[in-house]
Amino acid sequence: MTPTSDKSAKRGGLSRRGLIGSAGAGAAVAVAGAGAMAATGGAPAAASPSWSTVAFHGAKQAGITTAAQDRLHLAAFDVLPSATRDDLVQLLKDWTAAAARMTAGDGAGPAGPLSGPYDAPPDDTGEAIGLDPANLTITFGLGPTLFRDAAGADRFGLAPRQPEALTRLPHFPHDFLDASASDGDLVVQACSNDPQVAVHAIRNLTRIAFGRAAIRWSQLGFGRTSSTSTTQVTPRNLFGFKDGTSSLRAEDTAGIDAHVWTRPEPKAGWLEGGSYLVARKIATHIETWDRGSLREQENIIGRTKAEGAPLSGGHESTAPDFALAGRAGAPLVDASSHLALAHPEHNNGVRMLRRGYNYVDGSNRLGRLAAGLFFIAYVTDPRTHYIPMQAAMASNDLLSEYLQHIGSGLWAVPPGIADGEFVGQALFT
Amino acid sequence: MTPTSDKSAKRGGLSRRGLIGSAGAGAAVAVAGAGAMAATGGAPAAASPSWSTVAFHGAKQAGITTAAQDRLHLAAFDVLPSATRDDLVQLLKDWTAAAARMTAGDGAGPAGPLSGPYDAPPDDTGEAIGLDPANLTITFGLGPTLFRDAAGADRFGLAPRQPEALTRLPHFPHDFLDASASDGDLVVQACSNDPQVAVHAIRNLTRIAFGRAAIRWSQLGFGRTSSTSTTQVTPRNLFGFKDGTSSLRAEDTAGIDAHVWTRPEPKAGWLEGGSYLVARKIATHIETWDRGSLREQENIIGRTKAEGAPLSGGHESTAPDFALAGRAGAPLVDASSHLALAHPEHNNGVRMLRRGYNYVDGSNRLGRLAAGLFFIAYVTDPRTHYIPMQAAMASNDLLSEYLQHIGSGLWAVPPGIADGEFVGQALFT
Repeated sequence: MTPTSDKSAKRGGLSRRGLIGSAGAGAAVAVAGAGAMAATGGAPAAASPSWSTVAFHGAKQAGITTAAQDRLHLAAFDVLPSATRDDLVQLLKDWTAAAARMTAGDGAGPAGPLSGPYDAPPDDTGEAIGLDPANLTITFGLGPTLFRDAAGADRFGLAPRQPEALTRLPHFPHDFLDASASDGDLVVQACSNDPQVAVHAIRNLTRIAFGRAAIRWSQLGFGRTSSTSTTQVTPRNLFGFKDGTSSLRAEDTAGIDAHVWTRPEPKAGWLEGGSYLVARKIATHIETWDRGSLREQENIIGRTKAEGAPLSGGHESTAPDFALAGRAGAPLVDASSHLALAHPEHNNGVRMLRRGYNYVDGSNRLGRLAAGLFFIAYVTDPRTHYIPMQAAMASNDLLSEYLQHIGSGLWAVPPGIADGEFVGQALFT
Repeated sequence: MTPTSDKSAKRGGLSRRGLIGSAGAGAAVAVAGAGAMAATGGAPAAASPSWSTVAFHGAKQAGITTAAQDRLHLAAFDVLPSATRDDLVQLLKDWTAAAARMTAGDGAGPAGPLSGPYDAPPDDTGEAIGLDPANLTITFGLGPTLFRDAAGADRFGLAPRQPEALTRLPHFPHDFLDASASDGDLVVQACSNDPQVAVHAIRNLTRIAFGRAAIRWSQLGFGRTSSTSTTQVTPRNLFGFKDGTSSLRAEDTAGIDAHVWTRPEPKAGWLEGGSYLVARKIATHIETWDRGSLREQENIIGRTKAEGAPLSGGHESTAPDFALAGRAGAPLVDASSHLALAHPEHNNGVRMLRRGYNYVDGSNRLGRLAAGLFFIAYVTDPRTHYIPMQAAMASNDLLSEYLQHIGSGLWAVPPGIADGEFVGQALFT
């Protein structure tokens, strides 16, 4: 697919090294100075042994139960109307190959940002040269519109295999969704502890998609709001509270099996071992929140701001006692608090693996920061594991006054990818 | 200014500890679990000894020659029409006090996010509890519109002391400025290696400004594109090239003195020891750039992509030889390359201290990443040190085809702040 340097030399009459050499510069030094990454593409042997990498291939896609990285760049793509089923398959193959390379610390393409033909565009854009992947994971999902268009027509011959749970999320009370920040045929979640690495991944996958799919919307998250491992400290959201305290952790394998990986679906055997990605862009009215008293804030959340302990007592990890009453017989944990409404006890035992991020998209015309929480959860089935809870919370949660859901998306996340396969392969065979 | 816990206890009948205590929870444990930061506000003694802090007080403002941190949140503010000169002075006092606290790792207010009256809003928003300041610096600047409004009227009695160099930057060729991402009465640059810390700083300064000033626009930058110290690795911009190779470094004190700190201005003695902050939001057409060959990219930049060496030979730090000719007698470094046009040799010896950042603001309606470079430079005088260079570059730079200036601002940056003083104090006395 990529012309070799030999071909380039024939076409242009000069290889890259030849040109630099003709200027009297030290070509070898110049290439060696490029840092470890992808100077020659190919084998991860070039990578620094101290780099932090997460295995791309496996039974599950990486980036779900992987310890939540600090930074996010997520992009939703629409497949172009002109693209065929073969184009879609080739795109998924190309994306898989590029993701495997980038997560290992190599360039997006086999030649890398600095090698290959000097008179052709590099197959990697270069801004991650020398950067540690910093646990980069790239996770792919397929949206309902990939199966059927708005009129219900089968776009790529995939409609018969559309999972029943994979439909657009319903309208919830107080939703104020921006279509240009919602949905999408495909989604790519890039997480890394280095934001430049995550941006580089999305940017190169976007470049690779050229002519077949285009970005519908994308989102950067600067700080994680969930832990997915018991080894991680619980982070804080922009309300200043610890977030995701009761979110599932990877070490709870029984919980992960029960609540994250899909259940068998008759029409969608290809999704076995996968999951569903629920994304919600939740704008937070932080200016209003900041005017509330500490007492009111803690009552709304149902936990202390300091430690994140339930207001019924104990520590962060203590189970809340929703019956325990305080003065005048009122429960210490308000029945409409966020804690109460989100708790498994009030949601048929439902638990979620959350992977959300704080975001700030500059500021708005009112002179306020356009800030919020980009909610991500991986669930076994959105019909049991997100929709009922969000319906209740949108109506009753005391926190609702301080937030507004402005973006939404649901994607089926195929199972892990074996070496030599491409993401979603079972759907096409 | 902030009511004490005693007052709160009287008003509400219950102190915060009292309430938690009445629920049977361990109040002491809850507070201790809050992490080191600002559990009680006040002295930095609470901070972890391993935290990285930069001194706030000094002869110069921090955040200029400080080794460039990895992340940026910058906000431009407009003072409200209703605000008086006294309001402005009080705002600068309040901002100074909060900045001194936050850069030391404390809360924005004296009580902190968790102490103080339980029935009043906390004087810190809490999302940085327990976080290392990660070299947080907060740098303040004053815009031309603070001195005179659009009609030329003196807003706060400051017009007679407006520096001659402090006017709106002129229109440059190909400028396509968005007024809502340009200018502003005041600017605050928050830099930290932890983006949550930088966002927390801007968010709290915004909160403190309530009723006196509001955000006009703000910008996050996820990765620095300049080094300001010889101890730092040269970073890469979204063109994939090393950026800021010839930018001034803090260790070059003679260069800093000559090119960064202001020269005496008869009307503006208050600015002595200060600088000017030039900001330019530069959208980059990365999709187009990515279609260019490596040869073309290097010719446009004038340097190799691998090491950043001039195309005339040598290493990154080698001085370019603009006369050295290659095949057919053409100079190896194109006279319209970015290197040639930005070089001091072609700009009357002008050098700049650059502090720019890569940004991605999601994506646009064309399915492209809204990406670019948020250019920041500190200069002794924009009339000699930015305007002539940008005028030449906007007209002739080969790189101009791949970028568009969409935001712009110029602010006078007062000198450093002594303990007990407030930023810009000399302007008001």
